[in-house]
Amino acid sequence: MSEACHYNDALEKTAANYVALSPLSFIKRAAAVYPDRTALIYNETRYSWQQTYARCCRLASLLRQFDIGRGDTVAVMLPNVPAMYEAHFGVPMVGAVLNAINIRLDPEAVAFILEHSRSRLLLVDPEYVDVVEKALARLEGPAPTVINVPDPSQGVERAIGELEYETLLADQPVWEEWQLPADEWDAIALGYTSGTTGNPKGVVTHHRGAYLNATSNVLAWSLPSSVVYLWTLPMFHCNGWCFPWTLAAIGGTNVCLRRVDPELILKLIGKHGVSHFCGAPIVHAMIADAADAAQAVVEHKVCGLIAGAAPPASVFKRMEKIGIELTHVYGLTETYGPASICVKQDGWDQLPLEERVRLNGRQGVAYPLQESIAVLDSVTMEPVPADGQTVGEIMFRGNIVMKGYLRNETATREAFAGGWFHSGDLAVMEPDGYVKIRDRLKDVIISGGENISSLEVEEIIQRHADVEYVAVVAMADAKWGEVPAAFVQLRPGSELSEEELIRFCKENISRFKVPKKVIFGPLPTSSTGKVQKFQLRQKLETGPSA
Amino acid sequence: MSEACHYNDALEKTAANYVALSPLSFIKRAAAVYPDRTALIYNETRYSWQQTYARCCRLASLLRQFDIGRGDTVAVMLPNVPAMYEAHFGVPMVGAVLNAINIRLDPEAVAFILEHSRSRLLLVDPEYVDVVEKALARLEGPAPTVINVPDPSQGVERAIGELEYETLLADQPVWEEWQLPADEWDAIALGYTSGTTGNPKGVVTHHRGAYLNATSNVLAWSLPSSVVYLWTLPMFHCNGWCFPWTLAAIGGTNVCLRRVDPELILKLIGKHGVSHFCGAPIVHAMIADAADAAQAVVEHKVCGLIAGAAPPASVFKRMEKIGIELTHVYGLTETYGPASICVKQDGWDQLPLEERVRLNGRQGVAYPLQESIAVLDSVTMEPVPADGQTVGEIMFRGNIVMKGYLRNETATREAFAGGWFHSGDLAVMEPDGYVKIRDRLKDVIISGGENISSLEVEEIIQRHADVEYVAVVAMADAKWGEVPAAFVQLRPGSELSEEELIRFCKENISRFKVPKKVIFGPLPTSSTGKVQKFQLRQKLETGPSA
Repeated sequence: MSEACHYNDALEKTAANYVALSPLSFIKRAAAVYPDRTALIYNETRYSWQQTYARCCRLASLLRQFDIGRGDTVAVMLPNVPAMYEAHFGVPMVGAVLNAINIRLDPEAVAFILEHSRSRLLLVDPEYVDVVEKALARLEGPAPTVINVPDPSQGVERAIGELEYETLLADQPVWEEWQLPADEWDAIALGYTSGTTGNPKGVVTHHRGAYLNATSNVLAWSLPSSVVYLWTLPMFHCNGWCFPWTLAAIGGTNVCLRRVDPELILKLIGKHGVSHFCGAPIVHAMIADAADAAQAVVEHKVCGLIAGAAPPASVFKRMEKIGIELTHVYGLTETYGPASICVKQDGWDQLPLEERVRLNGRQGVAYPLQESIAVLDSVTMEPVPADGQTVGEIMFRGNIVMKGYLRNETATREAFAGGWFHSGDLAVMEPDGYVKIRDRLKDVIISGGENISSLEVEEIIQRHADVEYVAVVAMADAKWGEVPAAFVQLRPGSELSEEELIRFCKENISRFKVPKKVIFGPLPTSSTGKVQKFQLRQKLETGPSA
Repeated sequence: MSEACHYNDALEKTAANYVALSPLSFIKRAAAVYPDRTALIYNETRYSWQQTYARCCRLASLLRQFDIGRGDTVAVMLPNVPAMYEAHFGVPMVGAVLNAINIRLDPEAVAFILEHSRSRLLLVDPEYVDVVEKALARLEGPAPTVINVPDPSQGVERAIGELEYETLLADQPVWEEWQLPADEWDAIALGYTSGTTGNPKGVVTHHRGAYLNATSNVLAWSLPSSVVYLWTLPMFHCNGWCFPWTLAAIGGTNVCLRRVDPELILKLIGKHGVSHFCGAPIVHAMIADAADAAQAVVEHKVCGLIAGAAPPASVFKRMEKIGIELTHVYGLTETYGPASICVKQDGWDQLPLEERVRLNGRQGVAYPLQESIAVLDSVTMEPVPADGQTVGEIMFRGNIVMKGYLRNETATREAFAGGWFHSGDLAVMEPDGYVKIRDRLKDVIISGGENISSLEVEEIIQRHADVEYVAVVAMADAKWGEVPAAFVQLRPGSELSEEELIRFCKENISRFKVPKKVIFGPLPTSSTGKVQKFQLRQKLETGPSA
């Protein structure tokens, strides 16, 4: 700065011109601007923004009674019910950190998470009482206080202890005196990654990043205030990619959903005028199947974000047919969910279906408020050429990247080596500047010294009209080291032999990439809709289906 | 924070997870994501986002040659031409501060601003060469280097010295190595308020606020990437309310406009498919008049933001008729432009016109990413009751409030007294939580000990079908101290006598609020379209029209 600079003289931050960025500001504004508009619908329950805000304030008051404050952890094991939404505001209102646990985990993993996170309180849905009881029995340290969140619409009445959410809430005042965090870098949430080996890692996110990604969602989709958002995406998954906060930012309407039930989803889309929803490819495929079966067409415009993997041609095509427009986004828990988006360029909608599928199935460009996405050589940290050929690792840099892994300095340092967050996904940079994933680092198949991208083989097989879903993994081979093996789930009513499918592959890809084995049957998926390749590899090793 | 807190252990900011918030990130992304889309149209000139970005990088390189760096000031005296847009990015790219001077100012004011701001470089349009030459002649300290920005479409060839923008730019490399500011609190722009007494004050804004208000504009209007934005609003006015940065954030298209020419505006709306524009009421009134004259209707949906004053009924009604939807926003240079918005509630569009005008003519609620608007008692700093009656001062708090006034610690401290920015505007809080301006502090008329809101009287007179525009000011009165006087501009072809208008007022407001004098004629407006009441007061004092 030159000597003459006078732009910092007596121009400090004050209470008038500086506040911490926090998504808590969004719900306060939503309650003030849209007090009577519907914030939340769950079965027959409806809450306005004023009511939702009041419930969050009551929850914050309740947490204070349990002496929960800044830096404490509150865990929840809840489906997409109102209490889950409220926890996204009530917990940070007292400065505490929300630890939303994956509801499909086993007792051992739940116990690990409760212990590692030092959770002091746990909100539990009746469906998960069994798992939680077993998890609590495994704890060596002090157990969290359990608050049960009964759901009268479900008729399940199991509970742990006496504390009950609605009863406790009703006793609390609407505590509007909560404060924004003193520091926007303060933690807001903790999310454990579903590692396939070793213990899960606790991803810590902060208020600033949550605020920015919630806003980034609005920019990515040009969301108006009239949005009706259906909760097909679990809120425990990267905090529902920050959409609980996005909906508050615009004063839209949340339609809660306990589980992904495609018939119910179609019904709710019509009934509530749902305009937006998110999900893994399998969620979209289920909706397409249900629409096929019911010969349903959506009467109004509906937009879907699809993440976890690119939309397969069959899903893309069928969703288009029933009137749902899909956009692919890509990200990780470490990036608060979507960190890149396959932005649709002018003119793409005029192209033939196959080309549209190819173009729209890429991981794309940086999400609006994410600073940078790059495909770098992991060793030199230099960008790969934009040739669509040279493989590098996808890396991110920006404000929508986690603080780090909780109490895991080594993993944090590795993840941020060289000033970029390393995604672990391999990709190429296409000439138009769009990133295209090739594979997870650990999913690459090394056959006779050649790298085979399992995703590339999957994409070819996915084009076959009889294939609903496919996953390709490495199979040990005496001669080649590894060879591809394909697990295939056929579309209902389809028939296809191993020989026919292998012949199809030979016509479409290099010989060395053609699977040496095809195994038919349903694919195991995680709670977030991702195919669990480690289970398929185990199957190959133990050989029950082979 | 409790002892057990572990959310700050080894979870520091790194290059991977923290970057300064700056609108410079937006143009970098726009160039990467929308390289070939049209960023800027001016007459026959068209630049894509890639070209616009390259030109900004060249400008930054040029500034470096002049040794302009962090904390230096670059002044511009330009209409809404491409160079003006480019300055909004090229200047901050080197860490310098953009001082966009009001093009209607006289040499004395320009000289004061150049001196006070310590501007080192000045970009000038040929139209303002006369004023600038006179201003430069008045300077006591070193004069800034002048770069001329000729406009071949205008045929004006006057210049100051030899330096010429396009020639200089052509010699520069596309310098993509610019860096984001080290600190998002760094100054990005300086804007002098058009004070009616004393010297203007220099409002300093920062990168963080510019980033957030640019984003807030997207949320306020649900702007999609396909926006075509017409530059009816001067970019020197609060940096075009941050819209230069907003357009980059979404990759929309800017249509530049040298001056507010309503016939040309109507033509451009049709030709380029303009979807959004901003302006003072007078700008909208001129467009409505031109549309009336041409019996034009806009074929596609167009949205307008209206600021400076609430939309008068006649403007609101006529714009609606030709297909332009108006939204009222309110703010000040100190709040980067709009800091509140009259959000349209569900159902308002079903109400009768008069009620729609009343509801939509309020200053409303906090702008999406502005933290708070409040109507406070200036002494006690307590909120006034939401009764629509009790008058207080509008105050703002949040990240979209200036750093302060340049080298004016006293004014800064006064503006931020009590932890709120004091707007100087008087208002009431209506029962639905919407703010409604009553008057500028200094525009209140004190008659026989009673406060009369000049705005309230204006609103009544504005309802008369023959009135195009009205301004009410205080007139000295021996008996009452002050009484209201009305300056009225009639609609073309209308006739109205002083007696008729006073009779109309008597039927509609309390006797003591009825103007004692009515003066017909065109109203003097500032370059930003505000009626200049101080000129009207002078007229009353000197008596030429009375």
